[in-house]
Amino acid sequence: MIKAALGIDIGGTNTDFAFIDRDGKTLGEDRIVTNGYNEIEVFLGALNEKVRLACKKIPEKIEVIGIGVGAPMGNINRGTIEHAADLKWKGIIPLADMMSKYTDIPILVTNDANAAAVGEMIFGGARGMKNFVVITLGTGLGSGIVTDGHLLYGQDGFAGEVGHTIVRPGRTNRECGCGRVGCLETYVSATGIKRTMFKILADSMADSELRRLSFDEMTSLHISEAAERGDVLAIQAFDHTGEMLGLKLADLVAHTNPEAIFLFGGLTLAKGLIMEPTIRAFEENLLSIYKGKVKLLASELNSKNAAILGAAALAWDQYEKSEQK
Amino acid sequence: MIKAALGIDIGGTNTDFAFIDRDGKTLGEDRIVTNGYNEIEVFLGALNEKVRLACKKIPEKIEVIGIGVGAPMGNINRGTIEHAADLKWKGIIPLADMMSKYTDIPILVTNDANAAAVGEMIFGGARGMKNFVVITLGTGLGSGIVTDGHLLYGQDGFAGEVGHTIVRPGRTNRECGCGRVGCLETYVSATGIKRTMFKILADSMADSELRRLSFDEMTSLHISEAAERGDVLAIQAFDHTGEMLGLKLADLVAHTNPEAIFLFGGLTLAKGLIMEPTIRAFEENLLSIYKGKVKLLASELNSKNAAILGAAALAWDQYEKSEQK
Repeated sequence: MIKAALGIDIGGTNTDFAFIDRDGKTLGEDRIVTNGYNEIEVFLGALNEKVRLACKKIPEKIEVIGIGVGAPMGNINRGTIEHAADLKWKGIIPLADMMSKYTDIPILVTNDANAAAVGEMIFGGARGMKNFVVITLGTGLGSGIVTDGHLLYGQDGFAGEVGHTIVRPGRTNRECGCGRVGCLETYVSATGIKRTMFKILADSMADSELRRLSFDEMTSLHISEAAERGDVLAIQAFDHTGEMLGLKLADLVAHTNPEAIFLFGGLTLAKGLIMEPTIRAFEENLLSIYKGKVKLLASELNSKNAAILGAAALAWDQYEKSEQK
Repeated sequence: MIKAALGIDIGGTNTDFAFIDRDGKTLGEDRIVTNGYNEIEVFLGALNEKVRLACKKIPEKIEVIGIGVGAPMGNINRGTIEHAADLKWKGIIPLADMMSKYTDIPILVTNDANAAAVGEMIFGGARGMKNFVVITLGTGLGSGIVTDGHLLYGQDGFAGEVGHTIVRPGRTNRECGCGRVGCLETYVSATGIKRTMFKILADSMADSELRRLSFDEMTSLHISEAAERGDVLAIQAFDHTGEMLGLKLADLVAHTNPEAIFLFGGLTLAKGLIMEPTIRAFEENLLSIYKGKVKLLASELNSKNAAILGAAALAWDQYEKSEQK
């Protein structure tokens, strides 16, 4: 009998799931279309069937020790999805309760960034670490904070919204999806760097291959490819992005004093381009007692199934903590 | 037999101590001059004698359940005082180890702001709270962060340096004692508001009673008294201070999602003057999911012996957590 956790990653388009053993190996997996279901009840019924089918196909006999779900606006304190803009199901969805109709196995729900943090701790570069932070750079900027070996939830389960700390107050007009102005993620994310790129294209007279692309056409990949080819303005965009990130990560250290901060997501694939200016600004802005002590690292989970690994890790973490008691 | 904790508050000038029962009542107390001792060993020997003498004078028979020490740069992970600028003893002082020569009672060492946080939890307004922050406004700005009922220490025991997060990066020349520029405590502290006052006196043409005082003469008390008498520029200084504090506390919430933030220290005695602009800027800068949920409160421990209460609370907290096991 092999022990495995079921990791489920609910995204706006697809929901991927897999059975993951303690070493991070995938034993069986499948997916279901998320946006094909207007009713959450119907979705969960279909998901349940797909999961059971995938489980049966695994040649080894497995014991499922827990279920972890990563979802946008997943709230770990309440087991809910709350007002997720990217999902069809509106309001507060009591996901864990609704899923418990189908199984007695413990179910944990959290957001993508918290799942990434636990994934890093169980399967990635944070193995053995007690105090660290994972920053996820996608369309927005998410973060999961681990202190003393536990995810930091806060009073309402919404700790770790580093993407919505304010940069350069009163000095920017950059609108954020949250309705405010000047949030970190308007600068530091796949979308943020594109906005910075457009600002630079507006301010500078220099030539750039990126002048040929519209806002809708351009992705952060275009910018990193241009930068790698030596495009001066694209390099400037990365420098500016790193400068903003390093500055605000120094604030994060002053709050939580972690051992390491991991950067996760597409934008970090452009390794030196983003890491170098970030580390420079980070060290420059750190209080002396922290200088040289806090590692800034690329996530070791930068793979396709990182979100599922993170969700499964949540279940593994819970299982092992309960075993220790 | 009455159970009591020994709380010790090591300051640059004096070291105060008291035996405190579970209700926060002082059973016996005394003090010893700190800066009269060049050698830490001699100081601790003298302190030990004074403590034993004070204990004997208590009419009831007491059982000391623990010793808590609050000291500048006190490190709870290591039981040390590390490079405290205000003390004569330089370098890293292994205080808990050195004190254990005199007693078998458990000894905890932490900084003033962490002690204030635990004091608030055990004896003050944070009783029953699991997630909150205490901000101490004195010469500098200190902070103690409690998450899930525990002090947040971080990897090196230096979490909670909110006073050294950066405000308005690149837009200020205000030097900080830490060697950098633009730290929050250069704006928000008894010293910070005086610096702001001087900036306002320089920029404005308006009359103010504070124009009669030199930098060395002026204290934050002068500013609050002037503000209470309607001095327009003094009120501006409080508004500006509150604006900076509210802005950075919103960032703190985005990191740790507390239930409440308590303001402690001399500057907060000018209640409405500092609280109103702080709350205004705070709510304005909060992410919507936190709006209206995080209370900004004045500490309930704003009394002379708050530092000792905090140190004693540290011992009580430890004692009760070990009893629960």
